[in-house]
Amino acid sequence: MKPVKVGICGLGTVGGGTFNVLKRNAEEIARRAGRGIEVAQIATRQPNPKCDTTGTPVTDDVFDVINNPEIDIVVELIGGYTLARELVLRAIDNGKHVVTANKALIAVHGNELFAKAREKGVIVAFEASVAGGIPVIKAIREGLAGNRINWVAGIINGTGNFILTEMREKGRAFADVLKEAQALGYAEADPTFDVEGIDAAHKLTILASIAFGIPLQFDKAYTEGIGQLTTADVNYAEALGYRIKHLGVARRTEAGIELRVHPTLIPADRLIANVNGVMNAVMVNGDAVGSTLYYGAGAGMEPTASAVVADLVDVARALTTDPHNRVPHLAFQPDSLSDHPILPIAACESAYYLRIQAKDHPGVLAQVATILSERGINIESIMQKEVEEHDGLVPVILVTHRVVEQRIDDAIAALEALDDVADKVVRIRVEQLN
Amino acid sequence: MKPVKVGICGLGTVGGGTFNVLKRNAEEIARRAGRGIEVAQIATRQPNPKCDTTGTPVTDDVFDVINNPEIDIVVELIGGYTLARELVLRAIDNGKHVVTANKALIAVHGNELFAKAREKGVIVAFEASVAGGIPVIKAIREGLAGNRINWVAGIINGTGNFILTEMREKGRAFADVLKEAQALGYAEADPTFDVEGIDAAHKLTILASIAFGIPLQFDKAYTEGIGQLTTADVNYAEALGYRIKHLGVARRTEAGIELRVHPTLIPADRLIANVNGVMNAVMVNGDAVGSTLYYGAGAGMEPTASAVVADLVDVARALTTDPHNRVPHLAFQPDSLSDHPILPIAACESAYYLRIQAKDHPGVLAQVATILSERGINIESIMQKEVEEHDGLVPVILVTHRVVEQRIDDAIAALEALDDVADKVVRIRVEQLN
Repeated sequence: MKPVKVGICGLGTVGGGTFNVLKRNAEEIARRAGRGIEVAQIATRQPNPKCDTTGTPVTDDVFDVINNPEIDIVVELIGGYTLARELVLRAIDNGKHVVTANKALIAVHGNELFAKAREKGVIVAFEASVAGGIPVIKAIREGLAGNRINWVAGIINGTGNFILTEMREKGRAFADVLKEAQALGYAEADPTFDVEGIDAAHKLTILASIAFGIPLQFDKAYTEGIGQLTTADVNYAEALGYRIKHLGVARRTEAGIELRVHPTLIPADRLIANVNGVMNAVMVNGDAVGSTLYYGAGAGMEPTASAVVADLVDVARALTTDPHNRVPHLAFQPDSLSDHPILPIAACESAYYLRIQAKDHPGVLAQVATILSERGINIESIMQKEVEEHDGLVPVILVTHRVVEQRIDDAIAALEALDDVADKVVRIRVEQLN
Repeated sequence: MKPVKVGICGLGTVGGGTFNVLKRNAEEIARRAGRGIEVAQIATRQPNPKCDTTGTPVTDDVFDVINNPEIDIVVELIGGYTLARELVLRAIDNGKHVVTANKALIAVHGNELFAKAREKGVIVAFEASVAGGIPVIKAIREGLAGNRINWVAGIINGTGNFILTEMREKGRAFADVLKEAQALGYAEADPTFDVEGIDAAHKLTILASIAFGIPLQFDKAYTEGIGQLTTADVNYAEALGYRIKHLGVARRTEAGIELRVHPTLIPADRLIANVNGVMNAVMVNGDAVGSTLYYGAGAGMEPTASAVVADLVDVARALTTDPHNRVPHLAFQPDSLSDHPILPIAACESAYYLRIQAKDHPGVLAQVATILSERGINIESIMQKEVEEHDGLVPVILVTHRVVEQRIDDAIAALEALDDVADKVVRIRVEQLN
């Protein structure tokens, strides 16, 4: 068969990696795909010093690629929402298939893009948009297609995981590690997307959609960052047998879908609690398969390129298939999506770690216990530390059983109103993930 | 679209699970596949008490299913080599697609079956044959299609991993745990396939083939069981910072392909070293993606059914595709398979844990060090224990750097010839897996 012609838009980290992998592994890829996959054109504003593009036409206008009649598949790697959206829509309009690593684009504009792609009988593939090189979208969408998925939970932001790993292993403060991550190039100059959980929420939105058969609903995801975490809580969690991870959790309940990104205590003996540094991992629990886990590099030049190239091979195979019998973009047939609602965070259910800074008076513990029990909140374990010298306060640390969040909100308000409780109550969600 | 009609041959554990999952998740599966997947006939000698087959035709002759013109896909779950081979060949002859969980059949007869299937334009799908519900075949064959795979390493026998986990966590002896595993139903009455590594070698043969693009060559796999492992070695390994796992390792080197199943020391902080009980995990290292890991239940009624049903959905989708543009059975196009040879174990390279039972004489350590250094074997770490009271012997435990196995064979022969060395030298391979 004739080689498939690919146009790469954006020759930055992922674009450069994609170009290099396609070139280096050309023979291996053709042995699998049954045909070559060739880069016919590249659009980039500046050359990538890591790529030798000799012999490949380069333009500085992405629309040259979109309009190039020779090109079968457009690889969108420019990032952002606005130009990327326009680019992909125009590519689809021109009857081209699209492969993208752009999680923000898919999470925010995916419903629109997929509808348009169906209309035109083309594919928009996005494996690289979640967890870099880990083929987790394929695993959920195809590998677990026999299951009713119960929940998905993932460490899907490498920057955040690097920071938490350093905080735990070296007792360093958040701000200190963040500075290092920025120096190492793991974190952006503006780290908001990473540390506030927005990047993770983009990815979680995509995972939830393909797991549960619901439309993409990024605007309904709850996000809480890791900037408020203290080494004190990291250490207390450790003493209780937990690790703190910045986790994306999507769970199907009868009332609706939970879709939330927040710091989470996980039992230290879980595999996912031991995923360290910039690595990613996603757990998927299905009714037939039970819990599964997928681990690997969640970002980086070649790991992300690995996913882009896998999509290119898939699309190359699908070029001759019946468009009505392909794997649907969001795993479920577009006319079979569910309108099961996304739950507000107050209606989500979890266990909770609470740290209460109490004055060292008799009876405080009884007051705390009463407030919780009146709201039907059961205590799983409790730990009272020595008086801390500098302020005369006693940290009371407890882990509750699972309960709906609204009750914890109420309890925290009541706790904070007590005369014997100083400061805000620290609340971190707890997931067992078994 | 019309529902796809499936015939299930064998209603044992996996067959029963497949029937139940297809029935329970019928709606969810149809929402994904775009059409129903219906069991049109079952062949079984006896009913499965866990399945309500009311309304589904049941026969006791598997060939009724093969010859049923209504059936599109035959699910082979009877196990074994002989009848299963005949069954699958006849199904293919009748133009039917086949889904199987039979690792022995694929590892031993796969080349023949796939050739025949290509001839007839049908698919033989076998995700369930390796690591149960973990979609690792799909991950390697499609999800990592852009990579040159360097190595695969897996805990792919749950029985063996259960035994090793119990030995380590509770200090129990091999024979003792094996008896319990048999009582629990994890191990067969004849445990040879599991504890001698034959079952793992079947699975590893399949993984190596799809990872490296080589024909299935089960007869060339090296296997070493876990029956000789002592709690002493488990504990020494622990003291050195390692865990012992029964690992299947397939590695591509310039000289050829390593294909070996044996007890292996793995650094205790690796994720795969922390995969416990009956769970499975497979690591795959590719040149672009780096190391990835896939974890889940490697056996059991519904986890294995999860993989069978995923294959059914894949085949249902492929029914309308161009047979020449499908994912090849062994990941690579049949005319592009490599004849890179499988290496004999003496030519494989690894690091080694050696336990030498030495007499408590001065100079023994010097003799040991000389024998190793004369053969170019470097020592990574060494640990000499106190004299053991009962026999006056001093266990000398050491871990070498990586070296070709032939040199270790020579060194062990020389060590065992020393007057000051009693007993056989214990040798366990060591892999870093990073």
